[in-house]
Amino acid sequence: MSLMKNILGREIPVKVNGRHVIPYMGIGQHKPAGRKTGPPIPSGADYQKSKLLKSLEEALDRINLKNGMTISFHHHLRDGDYLINRVVELLAKKGLRDIVLAPSALFPVHEKLVDYIKQGVISHIEGSMNGPIGKFCTTGQMNKVAVLRSHGGRYRAIQDGDLHIDAAFIAAPTADPHGNANGVNGPSACGPLGFALADSLYADKVIVVTDNLVPFPAWPWSIEGGNVDYVVPVEKLGDPEKIVSGTTKINTDPDRLKIAELAARLVRDAGLIDEPEFSFQAGAGGMSLAFVQYMAQYMREKKVIADFVRGGSTKLLTDMLKEGLTRFILDGQSFDLAGVESLRNNRNHIETNPFVSYNYHTKGCFAPRVKASVLGGTEIDLNFNVNVNTHSDGWLLHGIGGFQDAADAYLTIITAPLYRKNNPIIVDRVHTVTAPGETIDAVVTDYGIAINPQRQDLSERLKNSDLPVISIEELYQKAVSVTGKPNKPKTKDRVVAVIEWRDGTVIDAVRELEIS
Amino acid sequence: MSLMKNILGREIPVKVNGRHVIPYMGIGQHKPAGRKTGPPIPSGADYQKSKLLKSLEEALDRINLKNGMTISFHHHLRDGDYLINRVVELLAKKGLRDIVLAPSALFPVHEKLVDYIKQGVISHIEGSMNGPIGKFCTTGQMNKVAVLRSHGGRYRAIQDGDLHIDAAFIAAPTADPHGNANGVNGPSACGPLGFALADSLYADKVIVVTDNLVPFPAWPWSIEGGNVDYVVPVEKLGDPEKIVSGTTKINTDPDRLKIAELAARLVRDAGLIDEPEFSFQAGAGGMSLAFVQYMAQYMREKKVIADFVRGGSTKLLTDMLKEGLTRFILDGQSFDLAGVESLRNNRNHIETNPFVSYNYHTKGCFAPRVKASVLGGTEIDLNFNVNVNTHSDGWLLHGIGGFQDAADAYLTIITAPLYRKNNPIIVDRVHTVTAPGETIDAVVTDYGIAINPQRQDLSERLKNSDLPVISIEELYQKAVSVTGKPNKPKTKDRVVAVIEWRDGTVIDAVRELEIS
Repeated sequence: MSLMKNILGREIPVKVNGRHVIPYMGIGQHKPAGRKTGPPIPSGADYQKSKLLKSLEEALDRINLKNGMTISFHHHLRDGDYLINRVVELLAKKGLRDIVLAPSALFPVHEKLVDYIKQGVISHIEGSMNGPIGKFCTTGQMNKVAVLRSHGGRYRAIQDGDLHIDAAFIAAPTADPHGNANGVNGPSACGPLGFALADSLYADKVIVVTDNLVPFPAWPWSIEGGNVDYVVPVEKLGDPEKIVSGTTKINTDPDRLKIAELAARLVRDAGLIDEPEFSFQAGAGGMSLAFVQYMAQYMREKKVIADFVRGGSTKLLTDMLKEGLTRFILDGQSFDLAGVESLRNNRNHIETNPFVSYNYHTKGCFAPRVKASVLGGTEIDLNFNVNVNTHSDGWLLHGIGGFQDAADAYLTIITAPLYRKNNPIIVDRVHTVTAPGETIDAVVTDYGIAINPQRQDLSERLKNSDLPVISIEELYQKAVSVTGKPNKPKTKDRVVAVIEWRDGTVIDAVRELEIS
Repeated sequence: MSLMKNILGREIPVKVNGRHVIPYMGIGQHKPAGRKTGPPIPSGADYQKSKLLKSLEEALDRINLKNGMTISFHHHLRDGDYLINRVVELLAKKGLRDIVLAPSALFPVHEKLVDYIKQGVISHIEGSMNGPIGKFCTTGQMNKVAVLRSHGGRYRAIQDGDLHIDAAFIAAPTADPHGNANGVNGPSACGPLGFALADSLYADKVIVVTDNLVPFPAWPWSIEGGNVDYVVPVEKLGDPEKIVSGTTKINTDPDRLKIAELAARLVRDAGLIDEPEFSFQAGAGGMSLAFVQYMAQYMREKKVIADFVRGGSTKLLTDMLKEGLTRFILDGQSFDLAGVESLRNNRNHIETNPFVSYNYHTKGCFAPRVKASVLGGTEIDLNFNVNVNTHSDGWLLHGIGGFQDAADAYLTIITAPLYRKNNPIIVDRVHTVTAPGETIDAVVTDYGIAINPQRQDLSERLKNSDLPVISIEELYQKAVSVTGKPNKPKTKDRVVAVIEWRDGTVIDAVRELEIS
């Protein structure tokens, strides 16, 4: 495998699965050429009969998949999804081989795909692999190289024609016989369906699978019937309890609460709350939720109304909307039942998709309009590069999610404990780079806050603050003084996955682990 | 100019403006090939600065238009629009020539464009020409051949790459600095903005022009900022009184009321109201409104709730929604203030666009789901062909509107008086064909109802009805017995416009009038 180095000095393959790689060149340096791709032009004459099919088997018979073709899925049903396993099982029964699986993400529930990868039914994954499939990938047993993309990067790849989807299977909590579909109603309600939008627009064949068939029109139509070939009613799309949680829980660990508070104070003391067009984004992890709570408290104190807050939505955010602390929620996925209910009923809770939120190959998405974005990571290094994909022991266990995209905010904050068990989180060099240091503005730990030296303007904003600002080197020294300098994972030459930057260039490669 | 005959025997050019013509072949007979077109792939790096410009002049400087390029506009501001005239005036000042003007429609307010066509600033129009521009076109003074398309046909042409737009100017009653835009708020509120959707998705450059700039996010975002290059605030987009009427008026002429009542009885007696999935569509003309009133009355009597009614929305339809007579309004354009207000406030009043409603080159649009569609026409002939473009004196005075698309309903009814002044409306042969007889199911006049003999199923449904059903030949004889057989208009060989069928084939040509 020929290799080359990108601008970060990372060794990456020249070709991936036969396709030439463009090396990461720095933010905004790679300029795309050409035109967006288009799906085949259909004729209404071919869609006069009912689109309703009896079963997934019938759908697979109709679409005439061939070996080597690419199929896609969204991950809004998260760890509750039944569809991916079921479709792959049926493909195996049909004797298909070398299928490229292009889900927006895989979860532990999809562990049984390992067998189909071993058997050669699936050649490789283009998509996020959370947990077991990622772990399996790291062992080097996948036939081809996996491709990791952010939410925005996946939309971009499909839109730009880098990722051609032959057939998209869209799990739809509600759909009508025309193929209009949404995620806000039905027993498998998950909230938005935006991760499936690109698939519906650009795939050659689109199959909507639903356990809640309603009369036309299913409204809202997050997925439009005019893009859909077939509608397949099934008994159950997934396990509702694993699709969204009943409630999301705020972290109560005092160290984590301290980090959340420091992050919120950083946003406040930088003066962002007091400026017009305030907005923020935080995830659904316990520490992020705690951050939201502090943020809400500061906004109340200062009588500030945000122009918008960015979901993943949770009860905390929907409460802020109800309380009038924000004009809108711009929601990409709902994490709990309150999020789903609010999206269904509150007109100012807006469903978004990666085109509007995160896609870098647009005439602007809203990611850079977010004033403060609070994100997590597995490792941060002295150059502020962040790793969210592999752990420091080298295992590939996470997708990129929206990390690269959300890091486009005015103030991107990484919150992390200084170390976990015996692993320092601040390291000299991250095992793999998910996002380059130039996109990261501050790292908030329980031992202090490091500001990226490239952001002198931010240091300036904080000069009257009593926040514990120290250098990233100091954080690193402190971390290794506790944990000791850990051994780096031993890897083989083989590249098992590449990490694409959101513009389609490759920022790093994941290598096969040497397993002792 | 080489000519050929299409399947209806109409003589049409072999080429139009250098492009090969596909002759109309019958419904569903022309199968498209290839893939949908795509706009240039943009990079977010080029959209980091503000999109806000000071003036239309600055926008024109930025987009660098060249002679012969195509610019587009929507017609949601109808006869109140200020934008088209203003932009063309500025293009003329810049010395540009041979510009192709591709509005979804032109109105009497655009009469001053005649001068710019004469001067060669505009080479020709691809779009609907209601009134003076159409009249001018018929005189043969346009440099090239105009192309008429239905609402759905226009979306199709843009999507399929037949109509390439270099720059789209989108009049937006509300917009934010990102370019998100809608028509439901602001002093120039017009309701939906769907006629501009294809332009925003496929044009190389997209300029949003607004007289109501609001903070991000402008919600709903009928037009998405990710497709928009520039945002230009202007003082006034148009004349609100001519954009939507305060109220729409129901016809009170007894003959017209009789026609409306007969049409409503036809829908009722055909048993459509009693069947599941009932829906209907009617325009905003006085006779159509009267039809809606009768329809509502029959639905009340039968305690029927429609699955949806199709707008153009009016107070009558929004009252039906409020009363619970329909689950949804699927709205393409609002005709009065009540329509705009309902779209803004009622979640079951759904904004639609020609992709979902009318585009034939989709995996199905909803036009064929409409059970009964009531439309008007200038002429209907013995083969049930309908003309809505030219008058029987040969003048081109109307666009196609949604006529061809709405005629895809299960029961398409043409309502018309038997004659107007000395002109019979039922004729032996229409001057130009807008829609072929096979799409027209019934003609309702004040002298009786003719059912298309191809619809034996419909005659069967009506066998116990006391409706005055007679043959189209009888209607014709009756008409000419009153008016006398009128002279046919004298035309020259020159083709001044072609009428495209919704699938992109050419169904007829409009010829230059010999003016005595």
